[in-house]
Amino acid sequence: MTVTLGELAVRFGCELRGDPAATVDSVAALAQAGPRAVTFLANPKYVEQLENTRAGVVILDARSAASSPVPTLVVANPHATYARVATLLHPDPPLNPGVHAHATVDRSAVVDPSSEICAHSSVGADVRIGPRCYIGPGTVIEPGAVIGDDNRLVARVFIGRGVRMGARCIVQPGAVIGGDGFGFAPENKAWVKVPQVGGVTIGDDVEIGANTTIDRGALEDTVIETGVKLDNLIMIAHNVRIGEHSAIAAQSAVAGSSVIGKRCVLGGRAGLTGHISLCDDVVVLGTSFISHTITKPGVYSSALPSEEAGAWRRIVARIKRLDSMAKRLRAVEKHVGVGVEQESSED
Amino acid sequence: MTVTLGELAVRFGCELRGDPAATVDSVAALAQAGPRAVTFLANPKYVEQLENTRAGVVILDARSAASSPVPTLVVANPHATYARVATLLHPDPPLNPGVHAHATVDRSAVVDPSSEICAHSSVGADVRIGPRCYIGPGTVIEPGAVIGDDNRLVARVFIGRGVRMGARCIVQPGAVIGGDGFGFAPENKAWVKVPQVGGVTIGDDVEIGANTTIDRGALEDTVIETGVKLDNLIMIAHNVRIGEHSAIAAQSAVAGSSVIGKRCVLGGRAGLTGHISLCDDVVVLGTSFISHTITKPGVYSSALPSEEAGAWRRIVARIKRLDSMAKRLRAVEKHVGVGVEQESSED
Amino acid sequence: MTVTLGELAVRFGCELRGDPAATVDSVAALAQAGPRAVTFLANPKYVEQLENTRAGVVILDARSAASSPVPTLVVANPHATYARVATLLHPDPPLNPGVHAHATVDRSAVVDPSSEICAHSSVGADVRIGPRCYIGPGTVIEPGAVIGDDNRLVARVFIGRGVRMGARCIVQPGAVIGGDGFGFAPENKAWVKVPQVGGVTIGDDVEIGANTTIDRGALEDTVIETGVKLDNLIMIAHNVRIGEHSAIAAQSAVAGSSVIGKRCVLGGRAGLTGHISLCDDVVVLGTSFISHTITKPGVYSSALPSEEAGAWRRIVARIKRLDSMAKRLRAVEKHVGVGVEQESSED
Repeated sequence: MTVTLGELAVRFGCELRGDPAATVDSVAALAQAGPRAVTFLANPKYVEQLENTRAGVVILDARSAASSPVPTLVVANPHATYARVATLLHPDPPLNPGVHAHATVDRSAVVDPSSEICAHSSVGADVRIGPRCYIGPGTVIEPGAVIGDDNRLVARVFIGRGVRMGARCIVQPGAVIGGDGFGFAPENKAWVKVPQVGGVTIGDDVEIGANTTIDRGALEDTVIETGVKLDNLIMIAHNVRIGEHSAIAAQSAVAGSSVIGKRCVLGGRAGLTGHISLCDDVVVLGTSFISHTITKPGVYSSALPSEEAGAWRRIVARIKRLDSMAKRLRAVEKHVGVGVEQESSED
Repeated sequence: MTVTLGELAVRFGCELRGDPAATVDSVAALAQAGPRAVTFLANPKYVEQLENTRAGVVILDARSAASSPVPTLVVANPHATYARVATLLHPDPPLNPGVHAHATVDRSAVVDPSSEICAHSSVGADVRIGPRCYIGPGTVIEPGAVIGDDNRLVARVFIGRGVRMGARCIVQPGAVIGGDGFGFAPENKAWVKVPQVGGVTIGDDVEIGANTTIDRGALEDTVIETGVKLDNLIMIAHNVRIGEHSAIAAQSAVAGSSVIGKRCVLGGRAGLTGHISLCDDVVVLGTSFISHTITKPGVYSSALPSEEAGAWRRIVARIKRLDSMAKRLRAVEKHVGVGVEQESSED
Repeated sequence: MTVTLGELAVRFGCELRGDPAATVDSVAALAQAGPRAVTFLANPKYVEQLENTRAGVVILDARSAASSPVPTLVVANPHATYARVATLLHPDPPLNPGVHAHATVDRSAVVDPSSEICAHSSVGADVRIGPRCYIGPGTVIEPGAVIGDDNRLVARVFIGRGVRMGARCIVQPGAVIGGDGFGFAPENKAWVKVPQVGGVTIGDDVEIGANTTIDRGALEDTVIETGVKLDNLIMIAHNVRIGEHSAIAAQSAVAGSSVIGKRCVLGGRAGLTGHISLCDDVVVLGTSFISHTITKPGVYSSALPSEEAGAWRRIVARIKRLDSMAKRLRAVEKHVGVGVEQESSED
């Protein structure tokens, strides 16, 4: 679609420096944008690209505005404003309401007529689907699940029995919400399956990435609160709770019954062991492993950056002999008579 | 369903302390259970919850029985007994035998009439499906696969050519059993695909988690023995063998041709390199990496718990200089004349 | 199919030592092969198996040829030649051209009549599918995607809007190509979704493993160049570029905007942070984490092999006190007067 800069300024509360009648119709990166495109500058380190841009308009904050050779939309949070402008210019395809001839909807299901049920989807008994939902091709919704308003299940999503989803969620292809939790009782050196009778409760404005899995609770529900964003290939085990507006990057995992507070951020492939909790506002760096409850907001890490393999092999050999090395140091300290008092508890 | 405490005691071999005519109809956690619910106590550390429970009956062992304010079913293994009671009270939905009008079954396939083939499933030529199977929506079974009795493929499962599955297995949504192994021959700095002509053999009572992938063998089969339990998002590479009753938690990976013994337990995100083996009864803690064959039962780990990020950065810097540190220690030892003999092989 | 040794020698440029009229019809491992099977020896350490083989013919190089008790096909690269022979003897099932009655193809899509669209697949508006493609059961191809010649999408694949795929690619079941990238702008302690308007460009001869996810670009495309091989459960984030003939093993992850050069090899569960690059010909060992740009070809690692858990716990305790240990060493050095000059910058 085409929009004038004046409309953008009014709609998104920006100060326009440029011709309000000029038009744009798309978004692009600062370095690639042409005269019909909106772009943005959120990080001052790209100011050099700004100086060379040919964009139709740049969304930026007041500090950078003077460096722009083209029209600007000045606003306090350029990235968020850019996101809204991009959503306006590149909307989701319009819904085609109704049930496709190659979809299967149980007669007891209640599907709002404004929603679209795509081909090869299966909607079970007593399912409820609110207005303006997109149930993409190949999706399976088991009996009794409840899908609120304006949800977008892109394709091949699985929604199990007892799953309840709020409004405006987006679920990427292949996600599995409500598979059984991993619960087995040991008996005679084998395993007895423990039925997983809980569900999954998902708030509003949640996004769930491709091939991510969220298990149903063993007894109570697994809970994903409002505003949570989950990337691809994440594992959320049974009875986990993830607090509002937390964001978790790809391949992370949260083991059973752990609780993540509000506004936490987990980098890619972060892992939490089971039965622990993170307080609000914790950041876990990528690939880090959290084995204990964290009660203090802050940044946590156990990431180990790579070395050239030969050097790394020597380091690993040293790590494996650290206990011996510490004892040797202790012996030297004793021999020369330093450090004996303060460190004696360590050995 | 509703059942009397007397029936439960007889059916599951428990000693009932309470009214055999009292009834229950569901399961719940110790703290949440109401008078119609069965609950259990397997871990004595929750005995305080036991003292406050309002459950209809608690399954527990003889040590804890005296602390219960409500009727009890006393048994040696409360967790396994609870699992069986929960299965009785919360059974899988009954099968609706037959082939759904929106399913596709090749005319050469042999499907037992007691099995249910759900909508949008595809059953290839010469497939054999035993009695009382549930083939959930969107499942794909390639030609020639053999599915034994009483299997439950929940939804959107893929079963490739040459896969043979025993009885009473459960496969969660999105699992891929029998994709090609990752086999390529290098040639002129590119790769030539090596056809993967083996299959996958799966025993009885195996559970396979959501979006887990088990590759077909290169020549011989990949083998998952009876009683194995695999959680979500696990990678089992070609020609792996996993021994009876081993259990593997989410996101773990076993690289090609490795062999895991019987009754092993791998924590979440454990990893095994290729062409190694674990003997029976090995436990690998979560996030640990096994690079060598293990011949002795026991517990193994390389998990690295997180620290506050600034402290961790300093530790990493120290780790990266461990070789230098060891040499400095050696120099000090030489200088002061201690530790020279026994440690000289290290430097 | 059945083929004579003479035909194999001519077709694949081998020197035959044996009867050209003898026939074979399958492939097998060296130790298992019978007189109708082709096998190969690529690694001299298996020469003992060669001496006992009963195979119909062994593909090997000149060094090993003398040790074979059976006919041989002598060639410089036995593994690659074996791969081609195996492909000849075990071809993909023949295509059954046309659109299955239970598939859904938009009337504006252009599907070459030589291609097969299997049951329960969905092909969106304006999709173009080249000749001799296999679009397996349950696949979803969103509007506007372009699929070149001779591609094989095994089953339950997702191809999003704006994805362009070259020729002769193989996509294993459950792969998701073109889900949204993980892009959100922070605002008032919540997240605003940044529309992901880029696509995914995939070259020729690419293989993509089961349940692997490749996200669409935020603005420009995510790019997988010709000859790249990706194993299962891999995460490729938005705007990543992977260079020609690179191979990446299972569960690896490449975070947003990172660039991998040509002919790189990543072992299982390798991870790259975002916005970095690897030059050509880099090898990353399994489970290693790359946090910085690498400009020098070579082998890199941060893998940490497991120990018996008690010993490992002691090592971790030492690691956590490394800073203190380094300071103690420094104190000893000062006290005895060694190492002071060269190491003083470290503390």
